[in-house]
Amino acid sequence: MEMAIGTAEIAARRGEVPVGAIIVDTASGRVVANCGNQMVGRNDPTAHAEMLAIRAAGNMIGSQRLVDCDIYVTLEPCPMCAAAISLARIRRLYFGAYDAKGGGVEYGARIFDQTSCHHRPEIYGGLQERKSAVLLKNFFENRR
Amino acid sequence: MEMAIGTAEIAARRGEVPVGAIIVDTASGRVVANCGNQMVGRNDPTAHAEMLAIRAAGNMIGSQRLVDCDIYVTLEPCPMCAAAISLARIRRLYFGAYDAKGGGVEYGARIFDQTSCHHRPEIYGGLQERKSAVLLKNFFENRR
Repeated sequence: MEMAIGTAEIAARRGEVPVGAIIVDTASGRVVANCGNQMVGRNDPTAHAEMLAIRAAGNMIGSQRLVDCDIYVTLEPCPMCAAAISLARIRRLYFGAYDAKGGGVEYGARIFDQTSCHHRPEIYGGLQERKSAVLLKNFFENRR
Repeated sequence: MEMAIGTAEIAARRGEVPVGAIIVDTASGRVVANCGNQMVGRNDPTAHAEMLAIRAAGNMIGSQRLVDCDIYVTLEPCPMCAAAISLARIRRLYFGAYDAKGGGVEYGARIFDQTSCHHRPEIYGGLQERKSAVLLKNFFENRR
């Protein structure tokens, strides 16, 4: 999670909402993706940290199923990213700050609680919550 | 929608679940994206036709907000794609076959009906429904 926070800080310096995501392949113990938000830089509304990390990990591992992988993300995933985590069959989701407005795990669409959801990872929220939340708070305060 | 069906047919020939998506920029009247599923080919569980089309359109137009754009997709979008359509601020969603198992518009997470959903496009389902559905049915029958 420390690594994901560092990636989020770098995203903020690029003018992106500071969110970072890391994917670890537990079979090899290796980090297979390390991505920050790039929506602004890529003119791409889907370029959330988690989406970029899933794409990078699939490419690295050579499979669209990331069954041995865990994802660490600094903010509760939105519905798009939560659904992508399910499609990727990721084993564990660790996230930092909860997101009452935009989240899709504990809030909103609660993607993994839908009966139509084919795969629910183990979920651990609130890891280093304060650090991730302060990063976001400072970013939005500086933009006002 | 005819063009999207043609794209879905091409996807099937590549061994991908036959779904096609077209994005039209209504300001210019031009097709700005034309994509089929590529999950298998790219080892990418997020490479649904709609996601690729949104990324291509954002890149083409130079903005992550596709406010003047309409999307035509042969199948009801899943929760990931529906959430991406919302993030992209797409104006109108036209889709072909309904998807009771995997859909996220009329079924499942019903993304656009969530109070936390920031943008709901105009939605028109069931366009050329039979053609899109037959394409999918034939594809899965041939794989058995």
